[in-house]
Amino acid sequence: MEKLQSLYYILELAGTFAFAISGATAARKRNLDLFGICALAFTVACGGGIIRDLCIGAIPPAGLTNWRYLVVAIIATGLTVGLFSFVQRLNRPVLLFDAVGLSLFAVTGAQKALSYGHNGEVAILLGITTAVGGGVIRDILLNRVPVILEKEIYASAALLGSAIVVLGNYLKWGAGGWVAIIALIVCFTLRILALRFHWNLPTPASNKTNSDKKE
Amino acid sequence: MEKLQSLYYILELAGTFAFAISGATAARKRNLDLFGICALAFTVACGGGIIRDLCIGAIPPAGLTNWRYLVVAIIATGLTVGLFSFVQRLNRPVLLFDAVGLSLFAVTGAQKALSYGHNGEVAILLGITTAVGGGVIRDILLNRVPVILEKEIYASAALLGSAIVVLGNYLKWGAGGWVAIIALIVCFTLRILALRFHWNLPTPASNKTNSDKKE
Amino acid sequence: MEKLQSLYYILELAGTFAFAISGATAARKRNLDLFGICALAFTVACGGGIIRDLCIGAIPPAGLTNWRYLVVAIIATGLTVGLFSFVQRLNRPVLLFDAVGLSLFAVTGAQKALSYGHNGEVAILLGITTAVGGGVIRDILLNRVPVILEKEIYASAALLGSAIVVLGNYLKWGAGGWVAIIALIVCFTLRILALRFHWNLPTPASNKTNSDKKE
Repeated sequence: MEKLQSLYYILELAGTFAFAISGATAARKRNLDLFGICALAFTVACGGGIIRDLCIGAIPPAGLTNWRYLVVAIIATGLTVGLFSFVQRLNRPVLLFDAVGLSLFAVTGAQKALSYGHNGEVAILLGITTAVGGGVIRDILLNRVPVILEKEIYASAALLGSAIVVLGNYLKWGAGGWVAIIALIVCFTLRILALRFHWNLPTPASNKTNSDKKE
Repeated sequence: MEKLQSLYYILELAGTFAFAISGATAARKRNLDLFGICALAFTVACGGGIIRDLCIGAIPPAGLTNWRYLVVAIIATGLTVGLFSFVQRLNRPVLLFDAVGLSLFAVTGAQKALSYGHNGEVAILLGITTAVGGGVIRDILLNRVPVILEKEIYASAALLGSAIVVLGNYLKWGAGGWVAIIALIVCFTLRILALRFHWNLPTPASNKTNSDKKE
Repeated sequence: MEKLQSLYYILELAGTFAFAISGATAARKRNLDLFGICALAFTVACGGGIIRDLCIGAIPPAGLTNWRYLVVAIIATGLTVGLFSFVQRLNRPVLLFDAVGLSLFAVTGAQKALSYGHNGEVAILLGITTAVGGGVIRDILLNRVPVILEKEIYASAALLGSAIVVLGNYLKWGAGGWVAIIALIVCFTLRILALRFHWNLPTPASNKTNSDKKE
C-alpha cells in the first residue's frame, strides 16, 4: 500500500505539472509578462483545489500551504519561458499527463470532501470542481469562454470518476484502495478515448446559424 | 405559519427554476455543450448562495448539499435542450419568476446572514450577493460585462429588499414574518415596475461619445 | 506607537480611496450605471481582502463588516459621477495613493495571515492577493485580461513587500513595527520607481508576431 502511495504522489506531481504547463503556455501565447505566466501556471495547478477547500472548510487551502505546488508552477514557468519550442513539442505527453491530473484531481477531490464528512452530492460536485476549476479560472483570466463548457469530454470524465468514488463509498467498498483505482482508470480511459476519437458532448445549438452566436 | 412556509418553499423552487432557465438559455445561445448548459443553469441558480455561505461560514454551502437545486438545474437543461422554442415562448413567465427569485433570494440571503450573527451591513451586502451573484458568474463565464452592472433596476431592488429585512430586525419588528413579506413585496413590485416601464438607473457616462466605450 | 497606528489608519483609508477611485473610473469609462460604478469601487477596495479572509478563515470578511470601506466606495462613486473632470485631473495623486494602498495591503495582508497562524507561503501569497485581488476582479468584471498579468511591476512589488514581512517574522525581528515599515517603504519605492521609469517585467512572447496574440 505504501508503494501505491508513492505512485499516487508521483502521478499527482506529474498531473500538477501538466496543469501548470497548460496555464503557462496559454499565458505566454497571450503575451502576459513573467509574473502573469507564473500566476497562471499556479492558478491552473491549484485553483480548483483552493475552491474545494474553501467549500469543505479546509482552511487554509492546501494549494496555499504546500510549497510543492509553487515550485511546480515556477519550474513550468521557467520551461515555458526558456524552452518554449521544447514545451510546444511536449504537446502530446502534456495531454497525457493532463488526463492523469484530471483523473487524480477528480478522485482525490471527491475523497477529500467525503473525508470531511460531506454528502455524496458535495463530493461529486467538488470532485469536478477540483479537476476543472483551475482551467476555468485560467480561461476567465484570459478573457475567453471556458473551453470545458463548449466542447470535449473533460468535465464529464471527472464527473464519472467522482461518481464512482461516491458510489463505492456508499456501498461500503471503501472510498480508498481499489475503488479509487477503478475510478482513476475509468476517468483516464474515457478522457484518452475522447481525445483519440474526437468525442464531444452534443452542442444543442450547433445546427443554428452563426449569427445566433453573436448575441 | 406552516402554510406560509410551504408557499415560501414553492416560490423558492419557482424562483430557482427561473434562474436556472436563464442560465441554460444564455448557455445554449452561446453554443455551449450539454455539460456547459447544465453547469450554467446550476451556477445561476446556486452561485450567489454559495458565495454568501462561504462568507458567513455556512460550510458546506447549501447549494452543494441540497439535491433539489441540482434537479432543478437538470430539468431546466432538459427543457432548454429539448423544447427550446417552448422555453423561448416562456420568456414572460420566466421574467416574472425571475423577479420572484430575486426577491426571495435577497430576503432569505439577508435573513440567513443575520441568523448567523452578522451585522446589518453584512446582511445587506450578502442579500444582494445571493440575489445577483449567480447572474454575475453566468456573465463572467460567457465572457461579457455583467448585465446588472450596466443597466436595469435589478440589484437595486435586491438592495431595497435586504435593507427592509435589516431595518425590521434592527427595530425589533422581527426579521421573519411580516417584515419579510413586506420586503418581498417591495422588492418584487419595484422589479416588475422597472421591467414594465423600462426604468433604468442613470448611466453617468451615457452622454459621451462611443469611442469612449472602446477604451 | 499610537501615533504610528493613526498614521497607518489614515494611510490605509487613503489607499482604499485610491483603489475605489480606480474602480469607479474604470466602471464609468465602460458606461456602467450608478450601481455598477459603486459596485466596482467597492470591489476594487475590498475584493482582495475578502478573498484573503475567506482563505485564512476570518469570517465574516472585514470588507463586509467594516462600514468605512462602503462609505469610501460611495464617496468615490459620488466624486467620479459628479466631478469626473476633477477626478481625471487627480490622476497623478491617485497613482501615488494607489502605490500607498498597494504597499499597505500587501504588508497588512501578510501580517494578518501570519497572525492567524498560517505559514510564510500562505502569508506571501495572500499578501499579494490582498494587494492585487480587487484589481483583478475589476478587470474580470469589465471583461478584459487583468492588467497586472500583462505588464508593469505591480504584483512583484507586493510580492517583495509581503516577503520582507515573512522574512522578518521568520528571523524573529517581529512582523510588526520596523519590519513592516521597511517592507512598506521598499514596496512603495519599487512601485513608484517602476511608474517613473516605465519599468516592466519581461514579456517572453513580445518578440513574436502579433498574429500570435489573436489565438
